[in-house]
Amino acid sequence: MPVNLSAPDPASLLPVPGVELGIASAGIKKPGRKDVLVLRIAPDSEVVGVFTQNRFCAAPVTVCKEHLHNDKGIRALVVNTGNANAGTGADGLARARKTCEALAAELGFRPEQVLPFSTGVILEPLPLDKLVAALPAACADLRPANWATAAEAIMTTDIVAKAASRKVALDGVEFAVTGIAKGSGMIHPNMATMLSFLATDAPVSCEALEAMLRHAVNKSFNCISVDGDTSTNDACILIATGSTPAPVIMDDGDARFASLQAAVTEVMIQLAQAIVRDGEGATKFMEVRVEGGRDEAECKQVAYAIARSPLVKTAFFASDPNLGRILAAVGYAGLSDLDVERIRLWLGNVLVAENGGRAASYREAEGARVMAAPEIAVRVDLARGNTVATVWTCDFSYDYVKINAEYRT
Amino acid sequence: MPVNLSAPDPASLLPVPGVELGIASAGIKKPGRKDVLVLRIAPDSEVVGVFTQNRFCAAPVTVCKEHLHNDKGIRALVVNTGNANAGTGADGLARARKTCEALAAELGFRPEQVLPFSTGVILEPLPLDKLVAALPAACADLRPANWATAAEAIMTTDIVAKAASRKVALDGVEFAVTGIAKGSGMIHPNMATMLSFLATDAPVSCEALEAMLRHAVNKSFNCISVDGDTSTNDACILIATGSTPAPVIMDDGDARFASLQAAVTEVMIQLAQAIVRDGEGATKFMEVRVEGGRDEAECKQVAYAIARSPLVKTAFFASDPNLGRILAAVGYAGLSDLDVERIRLWLGNVLVAENGGRAASYREAEGARVMAAPEIAVRVDLARGNTVATVWTCDFSYDYVKINAEYRT
Repeated sequence: MPVNLSAPDPASLLPVPGVELGIASAGIKKPGRKDVLVLRIAPDSEVVGVFTQNRFCAAPVTVCKEHLHNDKGIRALVVNTGNANAGTGADGLARARKTCEALAAELGFRPEQVLPFSTGVILEPLPLDKLVAALPAACADLRPANWATAAEAIMTTDIVAKAASRKVALDGVEFAVTGIAKGSGMIHPNMATMLSFLATDAPVSCEALEAMLRHAVNKSFNCISVDGDTSTNDACILIATGSTPAPVIMDDGDARFASLQAAVTEVMIQLAQAIVRDGEGATKFMEVRVEGGRDEAECKQVAYAIARSPLVKTAFFASDPNLGRILAAVGYAGLSDLDVERIRLWLGNVLVAENGGRAASYREAEGARVMAAPEIAVRVDLARGNTVATVWTCDFSYDYVKINAEYRT
Repeated sequence: MPVNLSAPDPASLLPVPGVELGIASAGIKKPGRKDVLVLRIAPDSEVVGVFTQNRFCAAPVTVCKEHLHNDKGIRALVVNTGNANAGTGADGLARARKTCEALAAELGFRPEQVLPFSTGVILEPLPLDKLVAALPAACADLRPANWATAAEAIMTTDIVAKAASRKVALDGVEFAVTGIAKGSGMIHPNMATMLSFLATDAPVSCEALEAMLRHAVNKSFNCISVDGDTSTNDACILIATGSTPAPVIMDDGDARFASLQAAVTEVMIQLAQAIVRDGEGATKFMEVRVEGGRDEAECKQVAYAIARSPLVKTAFFASDPNLGRILAAVGYAGLSDLDVERIRLWLGNVLVAENGGRAASYREAEGARVMAAPEIAVRVDLARGNTVATVWTCDFSYDYVKINAEYRT
């Protein structure tokens, strides 16, 4: 059961001038299910992306990088679920390229102007014929007010569709920032997590957009973990159509840069948290904040050690304040010169540990009270610096095992 | 259910001249359960140990290191289960020292001649009075032919007691190597895993014994993972009593060194595999062999990425040959210059993947046949060197979640 997460109200999702979305059912894994999404974007849009660091990256990831690098002016995106087209070798690459060719022909673009994305089972051939056959229907469905249905069309083991939207006024001109994301398993990002597509109608230079994307991803998708597995297909795309007239935001010297970046980051954090709230089998949502570190990297390292520990995650599932497991994770996080005597650990606002052991003031009943809530904040002070990092994760339940043991059946 | 593992036949466990073992019930966590073990060892025995790298190491680990470093001639070990005495600060250290004092007084030794060990729940005070009160009974029980009961006395969430024994003839003189181990959760070793105690009656110098221990641990306990959590209390102790007369083995220049090291390594591998076979909730035993690496470290890195992946482990639980998950783990293992086109993956002797994708010869039915067995071999060829590493792990089942969600209840 997703934790404090419901499907987005379609009316809350602002259309983005310059972006149209179309959905179809190709029957890739299951008949009748929406599993194909096409985005058409205005000419001269800027498009930037970040992709998985997994060496076994999927064929569409390779093609996306090529097409973004060649820079012939991206005009369309095509996404399928039900098959990841990963671990598919040269044949998989050919099928990803044929997908681009088919959509390009349908829309009157060149194949290099299309970015392909896939998600689903690994190591099985992409059913290209089914996918191509569904493209005309997806193109016939193209319209701006289609973000909510698009969010549904990219789901795999997700229970709830994920979309978010912000309005931002820059020098008196209003722009939209709207995004969708999918993912609930194989979630442990390294650059970007699973699939996410965001767009704004603000005019932004490629360099400025790239900077915004990296900042926002680092504060959102790169701060979550469901199961510690980094996917082969992770991709996050940010589009700036410039369809609403205004001077182009060239770089962070423009006073509007920070406001737009903040809106993009807010949308991404909402989507990233939605992925965790809908984590496979999740019953709890945990925020792990590590402060007092020497740099952000070591704070994240400790936070992820906690967030990835199966022992910590099963204790949260049981609402059991077995908090020694958190200390154990801090201890093995890999900071070899960590002084454990100085560490303090809080659960919610209850001080649990200090001076290398349980706090004198700690009462189990207070820990149990915090653990019983569906949202739990864990805070660790390393007391060796001034940096902070926050990651979000979910618990580890029977249903996680069930979902992943039965995934292909 | 442990995988192909039954309790050791007490008759198969060779007594080690110079070592006596005594067991008692202190009622530390549950009344009536055997939870205290004392070992008394002959004067002039050599004793070496390796301990957890977890920065939140337990109080008894700190005391063990001190006493081994001071080298006043170790004469006794005391082990309790039910409480780890970890995350207990200065008070925990005082309780570990008082345990040594109490046993030393009982046996007529000095406190620095005693090594203390604890395992169980973290962050709770060690019930010192109960433990001390049980020491006379444990000492009254001291006898050489007590290894099987000792193995039972150190169990926590273990279902099956773990012990192994080998006879080794060196220049016509027969010696015993006997060991016990405990552990089935919080198992992801870094130097040593959980508690293990081995002894031989061969005469070995401290330096030679240290070398044997490091070699054997590196080939056994440092090659297993149950849940990826490195414990706060891991310790592995190797004792050479020299009680059976023979010239002392000074170093690896002695022809007998290799034979004795092989016997010690065999016993440790059997114990390490027993920990995995009895891994919390385990229904399958997996051997992950990574070959063709540039060095052992990178082979282990890839093998552990596979062995730790919750997605791989749940697929094995389901007997589902969802083998793309293994490729994904290879891809995110952290070898940034890995050429995935050259990798080959086998399940048992079935070639699954090559040339970056599924092998043309692969048939799902063959993968399913291998997956249905209780013991499964995974083999990956990185094709970039000549080194090999093997790790052992178990699957991830409903019972893993159940055991760890209910651990303290």
